[in-house]
Amino acid sequence: MDADYGIPRELSDLQKLRSHYHPELPPCLQGTTVRVELRDATTAADPSGEHTIKRFFPHTYGQPLAHFLRATAKVPDAQIITEHPAIRVGVLFCGRQSPGGHNVIWGLHDALKVHNPKNILLGFLGGSEGLFAQKTLEITDDVLATYKNQGGYDMLGRTKDQIRTTEQVNAAMAACKALKLDGLVIIGGVTSNTDAAHLAEKFAETKCLTKVVGVPVTLNGDLKNQFVEANVGFDTICKVNSQLISNVCTDALSAEKYYYFIRLMGRKASHVALECTLQSHPNMVILGEEVAASKLTIFDITQQICDAVQARAEHDKNHGVILLPEGLIESIPEVYALLQEIHGLLRQGVSADKISSQLSPWASALFEFLPHFIRKQLLLHPESDDSAQLSQIETEKLIAHLVETEMNKRLKEGTYKGKKFNAICHFFGYQARGSLPSKFDCDYAYVLGHVCYHILAAGLNGYMATITNLKNPANKWHCGASPISAMMTVKRYGRGPGKASIGVPALHPATVDLRGKSYELLSQNATKFLLDDVYRNPGPLQFDGPGADAKAVSLCVEDQDYIGRIKKLQEYLDKVRTIVKPGCSQDVLKAALSAMASVTDILSVISSPSSVSTPF
Amino acid sequence: MDADYGIPRELSDLQKLRSHYHPELPPCLQGTTVRVELRDATTAADPSGEHTIKRFFPHTYGQPLAHFLRATAKVPDAQIITEHPAIRVGVLFCGRQSPGGHNVIWGLHDALKVHNPKNILLGFLGGSEGLFAQKTLEITDDVLATYKNQGGYDMLGRTKDQIRTTEQVNAAMAACKALKLDGLVIIGGVTSNTDAAHLAEKFAETKCLTKVVGVPVTLNGDLKNQFVEANVGFDTICKVNSQLISNVCTDALSAEKYYYFIRLMGRKASHVALECTLQSHPNMVILGEEVAASKLTIFDITQQICDAVQARAEHDKNHGVILLPEGLIESIPEVYALLQEIHGLLRQGVSADKISSQLSPWASALFEFLPHFIRKQLLLHPESDDSAQLSQIETEKLIAHLVETEMNKRLKEGTYKGKKFNAICHFFGYQARGSLPSKFDCDYAYVLGHVCYHILAAGLNGYMATITNLKNPANKWHCGASPISAMMTVKRYGRGPGKASIGVPALHPATVDLRGKSYELLSQNATKFLLDDVYRNPGPLQFDGPGADAKAVSLCVEDQDYIGRIKKLQEYLDKVRTIVKPGCSQDVLKAALSAMASVTDILSVISSPSSVSTPF
Repeated sequence: MDADYGIPRELSDLQKLRSHYHPELPPCLQGTTVRVELRDATTAADPSGEHTIKRFFPHTYGQPLAHFLRATAKVPDAQIITEHPAIRVGVLFCGRQSPGGHNVIWGLHDALKVHNPKNILLGFLGGSEGLFAQKTLEITDDVLATYKNQGGYDMLGRTKDQIRTTEQVNAAMAACKALKLDGLVIIGGVTSNTDAAHLAEKFAETKCLTKVVGVPVTLNGDLKNQFVEANVGFDTICKVNSQLISNVCTDALSAEKYYYFIRLMGRKASHVALECTLQSHPNMVILGEEVAASKLTIFDITQQICDAVQARAEHDKNHGVILLPEGLIESIPEVYALLQEIHGLLRQGVSADKISSQLSPWASALFEFLPHFIRKQLLLHPESDDSAQLSQIETEKLIAHLVETEMNKRLKEGTYKGKKFNAICHFFGYQARGSLPSKFDCDYAYVLGHVCYHILAAGLNGYMATITNLKNPANKWHCGASPISAMMTVKRYGRGPGKASIGVPALHPATVDLRGKSYELLSQNATKFLLDDVYRNPGPLQFDGPGADAKAVSLCVEDQDYIGRIKKLQEYLDKVRTIVKPGCSQDVLKAALSAMASVTDILSVISSPSSVSTPF
Repeated sequence: MDADYGIPRELSDLQKLRSHYHPELPPCLQGTTVRVELRDATTAADPSGEHTIKRFFPHTYGQPLAHFLRATAKVPDAQIITEHPAIRVGVLFCGRQSPGGHNVIWGLHDALKVHNPKNILLGFLGGSEGLFAQKTLEITDDVLATYKNQGGYDMLGRTKDQIRTTEQVNAAMAACKALKLDGLVIIGGVTSNTDAAHLAEKFAETKCLTKVVGVPVTLNGDLKNQFVEANVGFDTICKVNSQLISNVCTDALSAEKYYYFIRLMGRKASHVALECTLQSHPNMVILGEEVAASKLTIFDITQQICDAVQARAEHDKNHGVILLPEGLIESIPEVYALLQEIHGLLRQGVSADKISSQLSPWASALFEFLPHFIRKQLLLHPESDDSAQLSQIETEKLIAHLVETEMNKRLKEGTYKGKKFNAICHFFGYQARGSLPSKFDCDYAYVLGHVCYHILAAGLNGYMATITNLKNPANKWHCGASPISAMMTVKRYGRGPGKASIGVPALHPATVDLRGKSYELLSQNATKFLLDDVYRNPGPLQFDGPGADAKAVSLCVEDQDYIGRIKKLQEYLDKVRTIVKPGCSQDVLKAALSAMASVTDILSVISSPSSVSTPF
């Protein structure tokens, strides 16, 4: 099997064309001299967790933000790294394949070779298991040739994606030491980057010389916080899904007799569903976050869809397209509670066929109410992160089934007078995950790869490579690095089998912000989407011409560039210092004192633990 | 509802770009003067059915092939049509939406307006039901503006797609008379074109002045015969499906733990599955035609897949991608027989829950053996063409289930030593059907629209618009028209509820020719596909650059241009006549006589009814 990794392969004409595409580097990373500015120490967004995070990360918490600037940038404190001794770096895919992953490795390889041709990049074969077993492939131009700008993770493969147990951490450390690695780059999502931070702390504690760097690559788009604007893979996934969704919309409008229920891969959070809605304008989407916030039951959801179907029928429309995120099922309070009971029993070793009889009365009642196929799926063992096997639970079929039953009832009672309700169900995910990456994902991943090199060259440990201001063209991107521990939060409540992770700092999947601009855009258009069939067909992913440079709608509407604004604030503070120097007038000093007192008062109040709710 | 048809709509950037694309016309159709050559009378490919076809089509059988040539073409007998009195033409979508359908209407509209600005084109709203109810929308440049080169049938919509019963035929005739139509263009597949031929005959018989023209538009690609090389929509469908299949292949190769079972829409025949296999090189495909020819049972198929899984595991490969056409289920002899029994009972009014007890003993045994979900799907009422509801029967889940059971058994017995078998199932169809059409489909459909006009201008009735030599660039395409009745065959055997159609000439779906070049290409590569993972990713549908002008593999490898070769033969015959004129030498005459006697002997033998098996 391993012999197949990284082998050259036959490419289609389009793949060949793409393999010749070369992403642009932002000015700050061009050439071989990069200035590194390390400014203020970072803090966790949720102050209430800070104490715990500090305790878990004594060596790596509170490190400063890093900015990478062009050599000519006029920043007094920045350090120019001019010496580039040869280093050895390892890299691995950790977590589900996301389009663009290969380009991180390509970018890292290019940066390594530009700065010192003697630098060595080793790819671990088969993900974390390859790391533990020290199975490597040296990354060279030849190896990369047929993987540049290509989808999948097949250059190196991936496996179970966990570096968490003592045994796993020790195996990882042994590998880094045996291979004399100066750096270890972990490409993955929320879970893998959490593991990366813990690994970095362990390395710092034990004086292991390998620096650990994380890269935000996940199609779910849920590794989002004040430092991270977007994840590699999300753009492609949403574009491919939107292509398919809008094809289905066109189909619905042509035949006028089907309701399509489409479930979208994306784990617990509904980012993919929201973005696809903004791109393709289906009639409805039900976000897990809405359901959780309004505590909607499965019956509420059914009624809401039935009312929509009925409203459309009154406009003579007997077709429609409804999106459901795969995480929806866990967002429905009573289903979540049922799942927790089931998982608890599974953990106790109760066999699947015995579970029904051991559920609490109310859980048992819900369970027995559900159709046969969905019961079987709810009984599946939970995933390694303690969530249900979301990709295997056909929520779309469950909802379609309940809606159909209700519509037939309404038809019989005469309250619904439209055509007989017909549903067709889909699950979109696997068919998008292996796609050729979009231009944005190619560019973003490639530049992130370069950033990884500069993090290592600066000797930083436990950082994630970050690029901000992404909605602007690549030549305006800001490159930097943030300590992963500063992105962590601590969950204090929980129940069920996941209890073990309570109290341990971790990156948690960012949910859709119901007060954010993307959601606002959806809310404003929801009625129009529902009734007017303003379906939008962005078409298949293009690499040239209109649409090729389009970016995710949610990326473009959100307030962005947190890090740019942090820098702006620092400039203001510097300016105040320059203006209010000893010798300035009484009036100027008075005005400055008054204004600063007011600012500090306001900030103290709104950043006290009691008033903060984590924005992600 | 109707108010929504043909309304201008917001297009995405890519849709806008596409809406400005203008297909090229072959030289023969350029300008306003086209020469029509009507040569030899056509005959049915299967002589044994000829008598019956003649009886059903006394007015429209045996009409000559028509060729459209450029005005300057030196063909002695061709007629130049110079007068173009204003005509009124109706057009409707009939049958499942196929990408490119809109362009037939656009091409027809352009041709009408070029030849006489007073020509009128009426689109029927909502397919055949719009025809019966005489609901029309006049097609204008404004209406077309946002539908050019766009997918779906939403400009006019479509419905049940049948013009067959006396009542339906009479309603159609009434509409044509009331609207004073000179021509009626029916856009559809096998069934709709059969209806078109019968309608043409009826019109001829009753002296209705409306001429009926059919256009081969069906994503299934099964309207294929000596006159028709390809169908509008097939190219797009196969490209979109291949994009998704190859994404799944990349995914399989990255995660290395799943077997993907993908069922493909395409009705009874396996053209879509074959073409997608040739484009994306998955590990396996099981064509319905192979199963039928080898009389494989469902157990044989299971064993065959299990052996493949086992062979791959011996090469350390625990992943794979397997394609199944949706028609497969009907190709399995014992399942087909079971379906016939079920449909018979359903027709007798037996309710679904009672059917199991009334099946014959062997059918009952098979039925009870099948998993619960598939039993429910087999009990669905058959479609209007008497076939099972193929899109609703999850054959891929059935096969995956049976394979999993068998692999677990082998694992237990120790005959299989690979990893635990994991299957993920997909059905690809709806998400491809509404796609933006490929350049080929845009061009092909647009030119077919023009051909329709010339058929009507030449006063032909009961013809299908045909273009041959399609594998070459559009400027080498040959445009013509063939009587639909000449493409018909007569089924003499059959059982079950479909019996009524036995003995009536019809177009039957062309199955994959197991002696054809496309299948040969598959056979040659099958082992390599199975074991070597030579996955090919053509990428998303492009409209520019590499791949944009690619044509279906099966189109390119098949011997083509039947009509071009018919013309070539006529040239040979003409040449013989020129050479062997009275006055030629004894030797020349002797040689000619001997050669011609031999040729006629050979042709008589191989075209006798007993030796002909229909090639489609």
